[in-house]
Amino acid sequence: MTSLDTLIKDLSRLPGIGPKSATRLAYYLLKSDPSYNRNLAGEIATIQERIKPCSVCGNYTETDPCPICSDPNREQSIICVVEEPQDVLTLQASGAFDGLYHVLGGAISPLDGIGPEQLSFGKLMKRIKEGSFSEVIIATNPTEEGDTTALYLRHLLKDHPAIAVTRLASGLPIGGDLEYADRVTISRSLRGRVTF
Amino acid sequence: MTSLDTLIKDLSRLPGIGPKSATRLAYYLLKSDPSYNRNLAGEIATIQERIKPCSVCGNYTETDPCPICSDPNREQSIICVVEEPQDVLTLQASGAFDGLYHVLGGAISPLDGIGPEQLSFGKLMKRIKEGSFSEVIIATNPTEEGDTTALYLRHLLKDHPAIAVTRLASGLPIGGDLEYADRVTISRSLRGRVTF
Repeated sequence: MTSLDTLIKDLSRLPGIGPKSATRLAYYLLKSDPSYNRNLAGEIATIQERIKPCSVCGNYTETDPCPICSDPNREQSIICVVEEPQDVLTLQASGAFDGLYHVLGGAISPLDGIGPEQLSFGKLMKRIKEGSFSEVIIATNPTEEGDTTALYLRHLLKDHPAIAVTRLASGLPIGGDLEYADRVTISRSLRGRVTF
Repeated sequence: MTSLDTLIKDLSRLPGIGPKSATRLAYYLLKSDPSYNRNLAGEIATIQERIKPCSVCGNYTETDPCPICSDPNREQSIICVVEEPQDVLTLQASGAFDGLYHVLGGAISPLDGIGPEQLSFGKLMKRIKEGSFSEVIIATNPTEEGDTTALYLRHLLKDHPAIAVTRLASGLPIGGDLEYADRVTISRSLRGRVTF
């Protein structure tokens, strides 16, 4: 196996990149400006050292706590619970939410062996107990796993009757992935969130 | 700009990767096995040192001359002229050609400032003069630039009346890119090649 084959094989492990796309990328890298390859390689090699989960919310960050958790100007009484770090990025890009976040690290999925204990519910409930939140927005994906996760969280929050529990309004295409929704859909589902 | 933003920006410079795909790739790299990132980074950083154009045919190779040019079992009397190195890969994958190759390095495109002098016609004509070829197959893309390049090469080969000049048969979708044709189409256009 040549260096080129190895590069193509490894590129095709990336999500959404098949063998043909991987080949196209490899030939692009062969022809590109050497400094671009050097920079990209350095970034890929060091990204996991530079970016770590925030010890408070679980979002990826270069500083701990993350800029969102440590921003005093954000609404401290509302917390939005998402599955993955990229969901924070998507919600932030919508510009429709100004509170805090909590990243669960996935959704409950018995078939994949992911139960509540694999997700950061413990940390979330500790934040809720120690904080003074008036509302928890559940922003899990509108999928079976996301629905299960939302129900589980609503159950946990029964012990906190003073906290309103809401979920992103429908408007999100069912069965889809939060990450791929457009900004307008995201904004609308935040504005139209309903008691859950 | 954070390390994550920089990585996303650089990933989105890759062909076919928009900002959303680049974000997805970056988050995949954040979560992936560290050894995968290390290997991929190393491969990207060193690919241009490991893989160079073959001094004979211009195809990318780790050894010079390339395995195709130095294979005595290949048909030495037929040469297939292509635009880009990845076209060699595509034709090889079809399994329908067993001769030699010549990579021009592109196609004639006056609008992009690419004339015959930017392509390796000189090297090709030297090979033809010094070799004993009975046929030149022109396998440039079925595009305006590829057609122009084919006509130019046919003109150059007028001085070699003993050499048959052919071109890949139609069957390739016109306006398309050789790289994306399927194997059957490639095989058929090789078998049905016509005097040009």
